[in-house]
Amino acid sequence: MISEKYRAMLGGKSVIRTLSEFAAKRGAEIGYENVFDYSLGNPSVPVPQEFTDCCIRLLREKDPMQIHGYSPSLGIPSVREAVAASLNRRFGMNYGPEHIFMASGAAGALAHAFRAVTKPGDEILTFAPFFPEYRPYVEGAGDTLKVVPADTQAFQINFEAFEELVSKKVAAVLVNSPNNPSGAVYSEETLRRLADILRKKQEEYGHDIFLISDEPYREIAFDGKQVPYVSSLYENTISCYSFSKSLSLPGERIGYVAVNPACREAETIVNMCGQISRGTGHNCPPSLIQLAVAEVIDRTADLSVYETNRNLLYDCLTGLGFTCVRPEGTFYIFPKALEEDANAFSQKALAYDLILVPGDTFGCPGYFRMAYCIDTEKVKRSLEALERFVRTEYGKQG
Amino acid sequence: MISEKYRAMLGGKSVIRTLSEFAAKRGAEIGYENVFDYSLGNPSVPVPQEFTDCCIRLLREKDPMQIHGYSPSLGIPSVREAVAASLNRRFGMNYGPEHIFMASGAAGALAHAFRAVTKPGDEILTFAPFFPEYRPYVEGAGDTLKVVPADTQAFQINFEAFEELVSKKVAAVLVNSPNNPSGAVYSEETLRRLADILRKKQEEYGHDIFLISDEPYREIAFDGKQVPYVSSLYENTISCYSFSKSLSLPGERIGYVAVNPACREAETIVNMCGQISRGTGHNCPPSLIQLAVAEVIDRTADLSVYETNRNLLYDCLTGLGFTCVRPEGTFYIFPKALEEDANAFSQKALAYDLILVPGDTFGCPGYFRMAYCIDTEKVKRSLEALERFVRTEYGKQG
Repeated sequence: MISEKYRAMLGGKSVIRTLSEFAAKRGAEIGYENVFDYSLGNPSVPVPQEFTDCCIRLLREKDPMQIHGYSPSLGIPSVREAVAASLNRRFGMNYGPEHIFMASGAAGALAHAFRAVTKPGDEILTFAPFFPEYRPYVEGAGDTLKVVPADTQAFQINFEAFEELVSKKVAAVLVNSPNNPSGAVYSEETLRRLADILRKKQEEYGHDIFLISDEPYREIAFDGKQVPYVSSLYENTISCYSFSKSLSLPGERIGYVAVNPACREAETIVNMCGQISRGTGHNCPPSLIQLAVAEVIDRTADLSVYETNRNLLYDCLTGLGFTCVRPEGTFYIFPKALEEDANAFSQKALAYDLILVPGDTFGCPGYFRMAYCIDTEKVKRSLEALERFVRTEYGKQG
Repeated sequence: MISEKYRAMLGGKSVIRTLSEFAAKRGAEIGYENVFDYSLGNPSVPVPQEFTDCCIRLLREKDPMQIHGYSPSLGIPSVREAVAASLNRRFGMNYGPEHIFMASGAAGALAHAFRAVTKPGDEILTFAPFFPEYRPYVEGAGDTLKVVPADTQAFQINFEAFEELVSKKVAAVLVNSPNNPSGAVYSEETLRRLADILRKKQEEYGHDIFLISDEPYREIAFDGKQVPYVSSLYENTISCYSFSKSLSLPGERIGYVAVNPACREAETIVNMCGQISRGTGHNCPPSLIQLAVAEVIDRTADLSVYETNRNLLYDCLTGLGFTCVRPEGTFYIFPKALEEDANAFSQKALAYDLILVPGDTFGCPGYFRMAYCIDTEKVKRSLEALERFVRTEYGKQG
């Protein structure tokens, strides 16, 4: 008997995917270079050459049994060591390898974190706007996702709404900074205030509330900004990282869970991740990629193109009269649409070959997301289309 | 609040792992080369050079965005195509790429198969002796594993016991041939009889009963034996494959689900796998490895050492008076212990630096497993220890 649960999921088509498919189809008609496809958050810069060289060297020089052999279920010890040392060096933490669990990307890391510190039926709170895959991730663990409405002023945290929603049933709070889709970076002030409330609520409710920090964009910050390291500001933090964006290798499925050593039973949580894997069919990220990543642990791809694109788009959009929080990181921008219904707005944009994703899918209606992980040259050409779109449909001046 | 469910799992230490840790510790004392460690099923031959060359070529010559980019959630289309074509060529099937889902090893493949064709609370039947990880795999999907007692005569199927257990609550039957731990290969006769019963039961109960076929050892068969392809004998079959053993790359986590095109809604089942992934945090096997495996799809590592080792051990064991079914594949042998309690037997063997795993852990008390994926030279040296062990402890003549 085919599972009705998963069959039902087949019906719910992702808006992002539908738009991306439209872009591909339109590209087949007029040439993809003429479609201003801002739909998908796919890195657009190559992996660093050091990573490639390192893979080749490992393949050439090392014993294939070591390179391709089973990884222990928590990850290869030397790799866990390298991750801990890098985090300590960069963020003044005191992780040991025993606080690190190697996971297949952020999706894998989150799947483990949710199962480790909640039980089915618990609530996980997150903040709009948010990455829509959080819902299946959270529901896959048997938990319920509750969403705190957005602070649309700055895309920091709407604390009033948060305090109302952080009930006794909340086992974990999920943050994502730098944020997909807003591009906002939570300030140290925001995070300190969040931590204070969580500590107070922990005491009030008599149980831990974990902060699960989804950090795939941690390395993509603009204007030399230092992204505050969430775990350094709240003890019960589980950081979920992916190398997909920083190293531009989303297909290789590599990331990790880092449990703050100040967590009660931090090491137990990591060990439990190895048990959780047995039930979900996860068995470590690929061994070759683990070993290679460890050797380029502090490197990133050349991420500067994202800042260039951010500047071009932000200036153009605000010039056209859009209300828009200036992104401090990621490769997303999240302006307010020029009419209340962002879906209608996005539909109209298609006539100008502009692929914009309405904010409803991120829990923030009335806004839209542009993923500017595309060639700068194309961004430049899209500005004219944006101007034409706005002038024609909304009568504003460029 | 840390999950009590997964915390409790930390207590249950695997017997295999405990023995393997003992072997490592003993190795530190007397040199690992002197420990006859038959505990772990880790491939002992290198990946084929073609695979390594292919990885290096992809890394050197191809666009890194393609090599390391996101894989579609069902797998890279050309890779699914290559898998389907290979299965069709080798087993006379008629798979299309739409029947293939790329998964991170057999563990990932099974996790998807269970979720796709059962609902929590359903029963999955398997046959003793069986791979002990089946229990957490099945329970992770919310199902209950029921075990059909072993046919200890030939390690085929105890059909009498099977017919008693295949109740209306059974949604799927899980087979593993060539079998870990027995090394037995299900004959075509066994599989035809199994299929006949399943068809009869499907009709009687008015619902599908899926055959989930776990096939990581499919390519390791001895004496030129052709392993019957399970799916060719029963329509509602889902094959779960891993390249871990055939290509000797267990750390790279690559395998697939192949749904028999004759299954009702075969393509829907594959599409559902993409939905299941969202809840478990699985996102495709690594892209580089997918692409490389597709290029060496019909190759294997040099697996001949396993047959050499099988011959040496089988001859020695039967010569020493052990009752033993002659393995037709895998790299395991599963003789009857020389006393009723195989745990006591294995404990005594440790004094001879022989690491043997008692059969209780495989649902078959009174037997023991030897994983002979080790150097032939070490196997040869171990024969003397086996002889000494048996003669001293059980008074038999070698």
